[in-house]
Amino acid sequence: MEIKLAPIGTVHSPYKSIEEIKQVPKENIVGEIELFPEFEEGLKDIEGFSYLWILWIFHGSKNYSLQVKPRIEKACEERKLRGVFATRSPNRPNPIALTLVELLGRKGNKLRVKGIDAIDNTPVIDLKPYVKSDLKEKAKFGWAQETEGNNLLI
Amino acid sequence: MEIKLAPIGTVHSPYKSIEEIKQVPKENIVGEIELFPEFEEGLKDIEGFSYLWILWIFHGSKNYSLQVKPRIEKACEERKLRGVFATRSPNRPNPIALTLVELLGRKGNKLRVKGIDAIDNTPVIDLKPYVKSDLKEKAKFGWAQETEGNNLLI
Repeated sequence: MEIKLAPIGTVHSPYKSIEEIKQVPKENIVGEIELFPEFEEGLKDIEGFSYLWILWIFHGSKNYSLQVKPRIEKACEERKLRGVFATRSPNRPNPIALTLVELLGRKGNKLRVKGIDAIDNTPVIDLKPYVKSDLKEKAKFGWAQETEGNNLLI
Repeated sequence: MEIKLAPIGTVHSPYKSIEEIKQVPKENIVGEIELFPEFEEGLKDIEGFSYLWILWIFHGSKNYSLQVKPRIEKACEERKLRGVFATRSPNRPNPIALTLVELLGRKGNKLRVKGIDAIDNTPVIDLKPYVKSDLKEKAKFGWAQETEGNNLLI
């Protein structure tokens, strides 16, 4: 079985390379999600949500390992191999990224967002609102419990 | 541009149809995510996380509208048309679902999970851990602010 997807829009961001994403934390990075005009109608009512999930394609991802050493583990400790599904590593069997961004505003088919960690011109495949049931106050975060970094490239 | 994906595993759930999902809330539904054996190694360390994101394919989704009337809006009020990207409707340009489940346990390549709202035999394309930065306590939920339902099919 094979699934075919087509982009619905594009990320505009100040990041020009994966290296830049690794060096500059995403938290205050402001960028834009530009939907192709034919999808603009699907954005109705989105302004009321303060956060959005952006699903996008890691188009730079060429291969993957089933175990990786997340770089957000403290450099002073020995980094351990973690299962890729217990990380948000971009290199995974299906290279789909999930980024939670703050919605700052909308003009037509363009959304101004904060906290985007995708490279400029990255293809977007879906937008979903952050809803009440996404908020799990009692969650435990396994090996990432003690990390403060929240860059996607963990 | 076209993106090709391949499933990494399968959902086992008590839901046999979309109609059943609409009738029986997912909150206490226990099911299983079975990864294909070749991906089991990628699950290392996943037990430490209490919640997981499951990305799966709405393989029953045949077409979509850019505006939809979410059924979780109170039946006593007139349901309004909302932009599909401001909902978690299963019928969307790229039929990828995002479900947050509670991880109850793991046995090899099988994860026991609570809160799954996919039909039995649904293809899974990715698993990601729920990390600290996914928790946005001050979020506003737009038109869904007042709804209590957290079924994916909003």
